[in-house]
Amino acid sequence: MSIHVLRIGHRPKRDRRVTTHLLLAARAFGAKGATYTGTKDPSIENTVRKVCLDWGGSFEVGYSKSWRKTIETWRHRGRIVHLTMYGLPIQDAIKGIREDSSDKLVVVGGPKIPGDVFGLVDWNLAVTSQPHSEVSALAVFLHEFFEGKELTIVYEGARLMIVPQEKGKRVETTSV
Amino acid sequence: MSIHVLRIGHRPKRDRRVTTHLLLAARAFGAKGATYTGTKDPSIENTVRKVCLDWGGSFEVGYSKSWRKTIETWRHRGRIVHLTMYGLPIQDAIKGIREDSSDKLVVVGGPKIPGDVFGLVDWNLAVTSQPHSEVSALAVFLHEFFEGKELTIVYEGARLMIVPQEKGKRVETTSV
Repeated sequence: MSIHVLRIGHRPKRDRRVTTHLLLAARAFGAKGATYTGTKDPSIENTVRKVCLDWGGSFEVGYSKSWRKTIETWRHRGRIVHLTMYGLPIQDAIKGIREDSSDKLVVVGGPKIPGDVFGLVDWNLAVTSQPHSEVSALAVFLHEFFEGKELTIVYEGARLMIVPQEKGKRVETTSV
Repeated sequence: MSIHVLRIGHRPKRDRRVTTHLLLAARAFGAKGATYTGTKDPSIENTVRKVCLDWGGSFEVGYSKSWRKTIETWRHRGRIVHLTMYGLPIQDAIKGIREDSSDKLVVVGGPKIPGDVFGLVDWNLAVTSQPHSEVSALAVFLHEFFEGKELTIVYEGARLMIVPQEKGKRVETTSV
């Protein structure tokens, strides 16, 4: 069972940092890859690839011209969760999602998600019904989904690795 | 016991959206207020105040010229957690933090957190030792700290309230 993230409607100038944070959170909390739609933006792809080179793992970022096509293609592969403040509370629905053994696509939008998305997915899920951020919604969803096990993932092929410290910073470098 | 967030080093142009997301995540996951340092930015304060007017509760945002002063003042009021990828794993330390009954200041930085911070806090805490986002780190910390109870907070005086739906959007408006 693996999780892939679909970020809809990226706008390079306005969203660059938030989308980058979103993609890095997707990686750090256990998703296997992400696709974004909107305007193609090589700079976010490069940032994420650089993080993977340094910190390991095989998280992949791709671009799609059409969120609809990505969702429709995904329906043959697994099931789809849409994170939205209008959906059903995560605390009520997460158990059912965890018990479903198929691969999952997790759809996150910016502020203007097309209304059609709500009808095309298997679950519309709210991580609180309050306004906050797609970054926090995705991270808490993944943390709940993986039940905290994602916190101890070891990333293969890392050049850099942190050795946790009470005070200060310690980073080990592996020559490869 | 209450939690207050300190966001260090805000730069209006570059950080506006990420800081806004961070402040909204702080509110949505149960912090009582936040202080930011760096450059004063009325637009983020206004955005958060507008959210509180619409969605209720009493989350307060303040500005401080000196992170050091805020931290030093806080030492008389409670204890301090610094979220950093270099710190001790949240899964090992969260129980001790939860059991401490004092109010908490949760410090989150941008990329360039001053080195002194590590020595001035009670816990340096890592929400994974991977690079991701202060928004995701804060949300998962609060979610762990409150053990999911923050997901059901009812915000007093809300003008807007979402009624969770399987498909679509339903928002109720209260006239006050």
